Amino acid sequence: MRILGIDPGIAIVGFGLIEASGAQARMLKYGAVTTEAGLPLATRLWQIGNDMEELIGQCAPDAIAIEELFFNNNITTGIAVAHGRGVILYSAEKCGIPLYEYTPSQVKQAVVGYGKAEKRQVMDMTRRLLKLKAVPKPDDAADALAIALCHARSATSLLRRNDPDVKQTV
Amino acid sequence: MRILGIDPGIAIVGFGLIEASGAQARMLKYGAVTTEAGLPLATRLWQIGNDMEELIGQCAPDAIAIEELFFNNNITTGIAVAHGRGVILYSAEKCGIPLYEYTPSQVKQAVVGYGKAEKRQVMDMTRRLLKLKAVPKPDDAADALAIALCHARSATSLLRRNDPDVKQTV
Repeated sequence: MRILGIDPGIAIVGFGLIEASGAQARMLKYGAVTTEAGLPLATRLWQIGNDMEELIGQCAPDAIAIEELFFNNNITTGIAVAHGRGVILYSAEKCGIPLYEYTPSQVKQAVVGYGKAEKRQVMDMTRRLLKLKAVPKPDDAADALAIALCHARSATSLLRRNDPDVKQTV
Repeated sequence: MRILGIDPGIAIVGFGLIEASGAQARMLKYGAVTTEAGLPLATRLWQIGNDMEELIGQCAPDAIAIEELFFNNNITTGIAVAHGRGVILYSAEKCGIPLYEYTPSQVKQAVVGYGKAEKRQVMDMTRRLLKLKAVPKPDDAADALAIALCHARSATSLLRRNDPDVKQTV
């Protein structure tokens, strides 16, 4: 199963594509879609939509896994990220790919085995599970691979148990 | 000048099309694009994107005016609306229509002449300025007409003075 993990954003949208089979997973591709801070919001959103459609077309995933959005301190950044996430969800739906959403703690639980794990622990475990020499850069891409791994592990365990915490949005 | 005003949302996206010439404006069309609450968020966003593109194609506006987003008490609703607004901005950009954003107080100032006017005052003034017998329903459509009027009045006065408060996003 090819899983495309996405870490939503407006300046940087991280992505990571893995091939998962049972408990095994290997990294196929990772990177980030970026937009310039000086451009109008609508232009950045249009670029994100275009790039996402192209990326989904290239990756041909069986599923897309995306992180749910939580607002921390900076509400202005949060609003912009929510705009970007809206366009990403729109693009996934337009491409007809099943979409799954996970909370940050679900990702931590699935990858590290502990829902309150540190970011560094998640990144290191992602590197080890995918047998990579170093943690992928930028962080957004590493996060996206972790989200993809979360879906791989959920799809082979949690979903089979019909875990109500796993939300399929399409 | 044909101006399409949009009141962003996820359940209801209000729209209002006016023809403005100098200080005069007349209503051409208004209504709302709606999505069902029970549908997955991605599906609702895809519907909004499709409907917006169709609407913009039908209306052929010279400009689109949209309200800026402010979070009040319900942050969950606010996040969903920001997702929808992202897709609306994406659609406007995709259609190549110049886009202008206004704060709620700019709309009140332009329509009523007072930035802290009550919602009812804005609606009644919108009805009077457009010479309508009743305030359009739903409220989202009336709000959208007010936003369109705001742009008409800004375009003929504020913009000519290069008012820095008027933000052209495209």
